[in-house]
Amino acid sequence: MDGWLPTTLAVIAGLLSTSSFIPQVLKAWRERDTAAISKRMYCVTVSAFILWSVYGFMIGNLPIIIFNLLSLALSGAVLFLKIRNDRRDGHASPPHREPGMAGTG
Amino acid sequence: MDGWLPTTLAVIAGLLSTSSFIPQVLKAWRERDTAAISKRMYCVTVSAFILWSVYGFMIGNLPIIIFNLLSLALSGAVLFLKIRNDRRDGHASPPHREPGMAGTG
Repeated sequence: MDGWLPTTLAVIAGLLSTSSFIPQVLKAWRERDTAAISKRMYCVTVSAFILWSVYGFMIGNLPIIIFNLLSLALSGAVLFLKIRNDRRDGHASPPHREPGMAGTG
Repeated sequence: MDGWLPTTLAVIAGLLSTSSFIPQVLKAWRERDTAAISKRMYCVTVSAFILWSVYGFMIGNLPIIIFNLLSLALSGAVLFLKIRNDRRDGHASPPHREPGMAGTG
């Protein structure tokens, strides 16, 4: 009977958790700067969302599947941009930033 | 009987989700560089973990409470470092960038 409040909270929390990656994807895409982002974090995050999605499929819970596939796509995008920029800048060297590159390549 | 596999998956996924923030906290702490990190992302993330923790208390689920309080502490640490560095460097300009780098931008 009084279960609507926790459920509403969980839905809002889930929406926030998933959508939280959107500003990071946009920032990394626009600024082409991912130097301060931890590749290790996003490797672990992506793995976690893969497992959460598999878990959702296993227990047949659609909200878990949808939220986690969306989170997987968004955090995967951050990881992709991080890896691409690391390659562009060279793996070993410390963050190398050139504001002038922003409009190019 | 066959419920152990999804449960194991969920536990591993939860551990990964929570621990994913550790390398980001360490990197941001060591390198003192958070320019590429989205403050908006971590504001949303911290809000989400607050809601998840409240949800955990409401339904009396200890694993949800523990995992989300830990995630809250770790993502809160990233947000703290981000805000501190933004203040150090001045809000408007991203750190480590030389605005004077030619008329390229």
